[in-house]
Amino acid sequence: MRPAIVLLSGGLDSATVAAIARRDGFAVHAISFRYGQRHVVELAAATRVARQLGVASHRIIDLDLRAISGSALTDDLDVPKGRSAYEMSQAIPITYVPARNTIFLAYALGFAEVSAARDIFLGVNALDYSGYPDCRPEFVSAFEQLANLATKAGVEGSRFTVHAPLLTLSKADIIRLGMSLGVDYGLTSSCYDPAPTGEACGRCDSCQLRLRGFEQNQVADPIRYAA
Amino acid sequence: MRPAIVLLSGGLDSATVAAIARRDGFAVHAISFRYGQRHVVELAAATRVARQLGVASHRIIDLDLRAISGSALTDDLDVPKGRSAYEMSQAIPITYVPARNTIFLAYALGFAEVSAARDIFLGVNALDYSGYPDCRPEFVSAFEQLANLATKAGVEGSRFTVHAPLLTLSKADIIRLGMSLGVDYGLTSSCYDPAPTGEACGRCDSCQLRLRGFEQNQVADPIRYAA
Repeated sequence: MRPAIVLLSGGLDSATVAAIARRDGFAVHAISFRYGQRHVVELAAATRVARQLGVASHRIIDLDLRAISGSALTDDLDVPKGRSAYEMSQAIPITYVPARNTIFLAYALGFAEVSAARDIFLGVNALDYSGYPDCRPEFVSAFEQLANLATKAGVEGSRFTVHAPLLTLSKADIIRLGMSLGVDYGLTSSCYDPAPTGEACGRCDSCQLRLRGFEQNQVADPIRYAA
Repeated sequence: MRPAIVLLSGGLDSATVAAIARRDGFAVHAISFRYGQRHVVELAAATRVARQLGVASHRIIDLDLRAISGSALTDDLDVPKGRSAYEMSQAIPITYVPARNTIFLAYALGFAEVSAARDIFLGVNALDYSGYPDCRPEFVSAFEQLANLATKAGVEGSRFTVHAPLLTLSKADIIRLGMSLGVDYGLTSSCYDPAPTGEACGRCDSCQLRLRGFEQNQVADPIRYAA
């Protein structure tokens, strides 16, 4: 089996992506990051998902993002709650973490190169997303181009591919696909502002998109929400 | 003064780049990385250089590169010594650290975005270099392109510029330029395999390129070498 590096946050999207990589015949080497996120419970979710999917390896990398602040996901700022779909589409929200996906992919690339993996999977999606610039198709292809110029493997003729199989799927599509691949969404965590006990808030952008996706599939979301 | 982020390793090249950024009127915000390099004495050099140049700030970021091994700069592999210029030009050496400059630049980009800096300086050079893929002009421009797609600032119309002012200079040119800008090369450290007391080995690729650069300027290299 060819190895692939999968960015696994513990959320719904990346769990689905890991299952897709497995379906496509890759040995999944998952990496997650402890970067000071307020929703650090997602790392426990990543560990559960990795175990359920039977990945080849799972590493949690410590990221020192002290120099990079300014996001409601890492700083003591309020996570927006109860926003309408229209409001979500209007501007890049305060939960944007500067250069986060660039940093995550750069790590994944280094790990790929030393693992003889030429495939990197990530769960960005450009439809039901929250307006993050580093979740767009042009970002993904720019990174792929960079990867092939940045590395010894790329220069020596190997070709890195950055797979973003959810890019044009809606949240409802993603959930349908994941269920068909055996993903247990009860193990995942999507909330930006969960209770210390892990219950999702149900009102941040991420919870709302998730809940709507399950609703459109007429399936109950198996995770626990705060009352 | 406009802020700029400068990747400062403590070596000769990045010290020169910091002086160039200062000459060009930028407030220099320097960042260095503690990534498990065997030549960690370069961080003390970075601190000395930052102080001498009077930078606006200097941060040392801890990088967890445990997942990424395979380089003589981070692992217990022998640093090549006494190679001829021909040998250096033949292949990417074992001192190449997978995706290192991509990771460094990704951090710099995040830090730039939150600091309202739109300029990033790095000291890569493609002539007298050791064959690293992520020191080539095509790498630098691919990263610049990525930076403008990856960020909120880029999407909102700001333009990030990645400056690599040493790209086409020889080591001798770099030293000449740096001396004219008041760089004190006695504070810098270039060796890949220094003694614990800081003396440079004089025989690794980096030492050889440096010594030749001073020789071509008919100036003595002010740092200490092992006898």
